[in-house]
Amino acid sequence: MYAERMGTIKNSAIRDILKLMSRPGMISFAGGLPAPELFPVKEIAACADAVLRKNGPAALQYSVTEGIAPLREKIAAMLDPGRTRLSAENVIITQGSQQALDLLSKVFIDKGSPVFTENPTYLGALQSFQLFQAKVTAIASDSGGIDLASLRKHLARQKPRFVYVMPNFQNPTGLSYPLERRKELAKLVRDHDVVLVEDDPYGALRFEGEGLPSLFELAEGRNVVYLSSFSKTIAPGFRVAYAAGDAELLKKLVIAKQGTDLQTNTFGQYIVNEYLESGLYQNHIDLVIKTYRGRRDAMLRALERHLPGSASWTKPGGGMFFWVRLPDDADTGALLKECITRNVAFVPGTEFFPDGSGKNTLRLNFTNAAEPDIEEGMQRIGKSLKVCGL
Amino acid sequence: MYAERMGTIKNSAIRDILKLMSRPGMISFAGGLPAPELFPVKEIAACADAVLRKNGPAALQYSVTEGIAPLREKIAAMLDPGRTRLSAENVIITQGSQQALDLLSKVFIDKGSPVFTENPTYLGALQSFQLFQAKVTAIASDSGGIDLASLRKHLARQKPRFVYVMPNFQNPTGLSYPLERRKELAKLVRDHDVVLVEDDPYGALRFEGEGLPSLFELAEGRNVVYLSSFSKTIAPGFRVAYAAGDAELLKKLVIAKQGTDLQTNTFGQYIVNEYLESGLYQNHIDLVIKTYRGRRDAMLRALERHLPGSASWTKPGGGMFFWVRLPDDADTGALLKECITRNVAFVPGTEFFPDGSGKNTLRLNFTNAAEPDIEEGMQRIGKSLKVCGL
Repeated sequence: MYAERMGTIKNSAIRDILKLMSRPGMISFAGGLPAPELFPVKEIAACADAVLRKNGPAALQYSVTEGIAPLREKIAAMLDPGRTRLSAENVIITQGSQQALDLLSKVFIDKGSPVFTENPTYLGALQSFQLFQAKVTAIASDSGGIDLASLRKHLARQKPRFVYVMPNFQNPTGLSYPLERRKELAKLVRDHDVVLVEDDPYGALRFEGEGLPSLFELAEGRNVVYLSSFSKTIAPGFRVAYAAGDAELLKKLVIAKQGTDLQTNTFGQYIVNEYLESGLYQNHIDLVIKTYRGRRDAMLRALERHLPGSASWTKPGGGMFFWVRLPDDADTGALLKECITRNVAFVPGTEFFPDGSGKNTLRLNFTNAAEPDIEEGMQRIGKSLKVCGL
Repeated sequence: MYAERMGTIKNSAIRDILKLMSRPGMISFAGGLPAPELFPVKEIAACADAVLRKNGPAALQYSVTEGIAPLREKIAAMLDPGRTRLSAENVIITQGSQQALDLLSKVFIDKGSPVFTENPTYLGALQSFQLFQAKVTAIASDSGGIDLASLRKHLARQKPRFVYVMPNFQNPTGLSYPLERRKELAKLVRDHDVVLVEDDPYGALRFEGEGLPSLFELAEGRNVVYLSSFSKTIAPGFRVAYAAGDAELLKKLVIAKQGTDLQTNTFGQYIVNEYLESGLYQNHIDLVIKTYRGRRDAMLRALERHLPGSASWTKPGGGMFFWVRLPDDADTGALLKECITRNVAFVPGTEFFPDGSGKNTLRLNFTNAAEPDIEEGMQRIGKSLKVCGL
């Protein structure tokens, strides 16, 4: 007899689509995978070797649940260069940002607890919240993020355990919050004394313009838990990410983590720490940005070339995704089936809507295909659209 | 506002005691740490290098939730050398065995669901089950494991979501189930169609005698989920462990794992896989066994030398722990405080009793201290006992 929660959870469509990627000739815009050809494999090999020479046994042993101290120190310094607000106590290492969502769910969510999200929102977050049987309310969102009037209305009615947002290059839409929206949202959660979870896996991958302050900065840490990761800036295979926030709240996450997996893998933490010490990190991010910007531009050209006039899309200023909207009566689930016969894949947008809407939308990842493949893949999608009468 | 579950969960005493271990001069019998000086650091460095040369980008990229196929194949072959029952489909990789417990809790436990355990039982399992608000019933246990008459009585009254046992060198008692008890327990759970979770992190660390068949083997996989890990046989820092069982049940665990952490760290999985391919694994285990046997013997001699006649203890045939029983009115929590002033630590046994009993018991780890330190540490415990009037 299974737990009640298993009755409502389904297999992730994305993880299932990922399995198709190994098909020969498949061009996938479906995953959220970074470009593996950019991984600093040689530098990682040198770091792994250095770690084992310098810290051999310790890097392979059990370690503390909150994560190794030097890495937490470095993250605190990255988030607060002046070191006026944050110390290692304000940072814990998580097994990918996905685990931070699991731990937050454990700490905050009872069966039926209200949680507010953007609409659409990150599918993996929905899965996490659903495993804890949260009552997710998708707040109306526009091109500048969550709609504050709508959020205010919902906050007046009930206090959620937390509000979950992704203000930089959102997954799935690629959209970012302008400064004014950030300030107002930071003030709103403070005024209502509501916890805000700010998920920022892509903020470092900005292709143009100036970075905007995080909600975590604007709220001066109060009420905000900030999540980020080295999965997109170094490599996902280490599963090294972090949560930053109030030290007392993090202690709760640590207690939950003890019973969840004891600790994030020690070796991966040491390697990421060594890589940060090597001074190669910012140069590597610059290379990733340059490559992804070229791919973003290639996809933009291909969208203009191969999609019908009835389609519209975002132009992401960073991150990994385009978001495409087809006419209201389009069904991107059916389109995907047609596309898969042509060896091209994307994620149907409805997956990201807690309210099940968005059947006419789709998400395209542009970071995991070379520019010629982006053109070829979009051509295939264009043909599939025609076959589907779109 | 936190979730209800956080009201009942406390910080792990063991994880807290682990933090004291870095104190200079501290001799700790508290953790469950393998001996770091035995870690095959050079061989791991060679494996990490080989993995990055051969599978560079793939070993750093996202991968499937169930774990990389070659490693799952090898584990299936280890568990079923004849390959008559098991394939990769019957194995998933988990982030340490602790995560397997978390995933099993997610899949099986609703608030208030009954779960049966040994008494005493593994503290980390209790933490996991408590995070999901299980109603844990500790079944009377003796030197041969869970008491079957008592288990039968409880099964007649209610069906638990699962029964959790550790039949080899149990944590905390070091005791193992004899063959007859295994056979009867396997039959009992089949007759009652109850899921049995068999946790076996230490089975490979047998110091003498012949290994006995697992419950998983005896039950021919039916009703039994088998958990084991490379944490004790290679190194814990990779957090690479596994669950084996019915393919349909494992699919449920995979769905839960998607929302929990997407996947176990890819690099660690590749390294463990490479290490298994290197053919060094069994030789390494032999070295670990030889060393731990010597330490077990050293602790046995020291127990006889420094503990009063009123104390009794198990003689573990493998694994990592001694279990000591003091007179009924002893309080090992108070003893620990005295011991810590003398720079020696253990875990008070009451931590392992779901019913809060066992205040006169304590757990001693013998794998993480050299033989002279074992003698010195036990001498300090002996002095502390005298100070406490025991």
